[in-house]
Amino acid sequence: MSHHIVIIPGDGIGVEITAVARQVLEKTAAKAGLALTFEEKPAGGTAIDKMGVPLPEETLAAARQADAVLLGAVGGPAWDQVAPELRPERAILGLRKALGLYANLRPVKVSPALADYSPLKPELVAGVDILIVRELNGGIYYGEKGSEKDRAWDTEVYSAMEVERIVAVACQAAKVRRGKVTSVDKANVLATSRLWRQTAGTVAAKFTDINLDHLYVDNCAMQLVLAPRQFDVIVTSNLFGDILSDEAAVLTGSIGLLPSASIGDGTGLYEPIHGSAPDIAGRGIANPIGTVLSAAMLLRHSLGEDEAACRVEQAVEAVLKDGYRTADLYRPGFTKVSTMEMGRQILDRL
Amino acid sequence: MSHHIVIIPGDGIGVEITAVARQVLEKTAAKAGLALTFEEKPAGGTAIDKMGVPLPEETLAAARQADAVLLGAVGGPAWDQVAPELRPERAILGLRKALGLYANLRPVKVSPALADYSPLKPELVAGVDILIVRELNGGIYYGEKGSEKDRAWDTEVYSAMEVERIVAVACQAAKVRRGKVTSVDKANVLATSRLWRQTAGTVAAKFTDINLDHLYVDNCAMQLVLAPRQFDVIVTSNLFGDILSDEAAVLTGSIGLLPSASIGDGTGLYEPIHGSAPDIAGRGIANPIGTVLSAAMLLRHSLGEDEAACRVEQAVEAVLKDGYRTADLYRPGFTKVSTMEMGRQILDRL
Ligand SMILES: CC(C)[C@H](C(=O)O)[C@@H](O)C(=O)O
Ligand SMILES: CC(C)[C@H](C(=O)O)[C@@H](O)C(=O)O
Repeated sequence: MSHHIVIIPGDGIGVEITAVARQVLEKTAAKAGLALTFEEKPAGGTAIDKMGVPLPEETLAAARQADAVLLGAVGGPAWDQVAPELRPERAILGLRKALGLYANLRPVKVSPALADYSPLKPELVAGVDILIVRELNGGIYYGEKGSEKDRAWDTEVYSAMEVERIVAVACQAAKVRRGKVTSVDKANVLATSRLWRQTAGTVAAKFTDINLDHLYVDNCAMQLVLAPRQFDVIVTSNLFGDILSDEAAVLTGSIGLLPSASIGDGTGLYEPIHGSAPDIAGRGIANPIGTVLSAAMLLRHSLGEDEAACRVEQAVEAVLKDGYRTADLYRPGFTKVSTMEMGRQILDRL
Repeated sequence: MSHHIVIIPGDGIGVEITAVARQVLEKTAAKAGLALTFEEKPAGGTAIDKMGVPLPEETLAAARQADAVLLGAVGGPAWDQVAPELRPERAILGLRKALGLYANLRPVKVSPALADYSPLKPELVAGVDILIVRELNGGIYYGEKGSEKDRAWDTEVYSAMEVERIVAVACQAAKVRRGKVTSVDKANVLATSRLWRQTAGTVAAKFTDINLDHLYVDNCAMQLVLAPRQFDVIVTSNLFGDILSDEAAVLTGSIGLLPSASIGDGTGLYEPIHGSAPDIAGRGIANPIGTVLSAAMLLRHSLGEDEAACRVEQAVEAVLKDGYRTADLYRPGFTKVSTMEMGRQILDRL
């Protein structure tokens, strides 16, 4: 059986890092006897420049038909003056909605080789292994919004069904982890959060061996810094997930390494969590690992190839352990490598 | 001239810590030739138990007439089963709205004596001195909310006037600090944030020597952990301020020390940022410093007594430098003191 993958390089360093991830997918597929086909499509600022819109119809159509989408990054100051509805990030928001990607999975793991890159004291971060499950298709992102001359509003809306399905994703994930789910809300203030909290309880009760607790979002923002090891799976709304997942990501001190998966009804979308880094674009020094690990998530979640995914993850860990570092993580005593060379080192260890 | 202060001890450790702060206010007033009168009023869980409501009419009436309100803390698991509209925290939300307290000021300063209490590496936190200015009377906290059987919603609403006045508070504060204001929003997604960003620009332009920049809330959540020293004044919405101010607070590693002021149209309200700590209530070991420093903010912002405020702040810093620690901050080599003894040490240095 052959799988078709759409690659959206996007803007900035997107081209360089998706090129490496593609090579990794190709070699892994060859080893595993998987047939993969690839197709590249534009989106983001580059698409605005070429075709006038951030998410061209042909890109969306290709994504819908693909087995998975791998995305580099979109955006950059070049498009800051563009009207809000036409900004590069509309491509991301549009893909999430059009593909029904309601679950954003963001593993936050501190690689043993990089424990001392964290801004936190080493004793707090060693062993941190969190999966953030962010609702991605609802909430204040997509609720009714508007503005008049001197007034503006946004609506946070959730249905029980939307909460049920995302909490179920979190519980399912926790089953093969440490069995702990922390649901984060602001139930002392928000009506949506009260629905969230109640629904989360009902859903979690249907799973055996799942330990659910609830945290207010302000408290969670504190706990992530004070004692990140207490968390296993965190499940939360679109807006809270946006904030908390970025906060959690920097605890590792190496966001260039972190992948994400957006899954749901349609084709899954995989992208590193970092941005398009226009300042270093085209120089061949970007860190491709976040995209390579996103490709591993693609193998696992969209193609069901868990073993191949693990092989990629182990290759990355080995390269880091062997001391290879792109510029963002370079320190004296390590081996500084380019984007391509980092790719070669990973390929060699597959 | 005499000033009248309403003290709301609240729940848990509230009684113990406000007692110390009151002594500090009394001694400071005597030294400065200020006449202060005090009156204690119930609110929170204790008020629910005694009078059936979290914010009794007589408390609100007294607060309205006072020159300032000093609050300990409210809440605790004892009232977890109470209906949402009757919870202890309704007292806080009710006071904020009734008194028109639209500006929440939260200084986050790392005391030189306590730099190594931070969860962050010492080189990142030394010298951190941030003022978070949180909008406190609008946004999703007070917008229309509701729920049906399987659906719930909350509305985030801001008027230009509401944004103007809070940004003006931030700019005013920055003038006597380092002149830098960071406005935090989610303008790539929210209509309210676009109004916020635009209005912030207009307001800041009217101040000379104010350097305004804008950050997305997810990025701000990252930057606070990665490089907190970059911030001077942060101004943001009610909801974002709730999350970011708690995240910023724990960077100090000693939230027992942190004060807050809520100011606006009516009587100002001052309270420590920590909770009611029911687990240690009544044992005489709570840290009173957050409340004492809140009393200092009261002197400064509601009574215009900046010099007296500084004297209190210096006394606290001296006590910490001299090695006195309540249980929450105790470490071998320091002098462990009770709530009352900590109070005495501060009084001695006034
Ligand atoms: C670009 C932006 C709209 C997006 C979001 O807020 O979801 C980004 O911050 C993310 O987390 O993927
Ligand atoms: C108790 C709660 C309603 C309150 C808030 O969200 O404002 C608290 O978290 C705070 O920050 O003062």
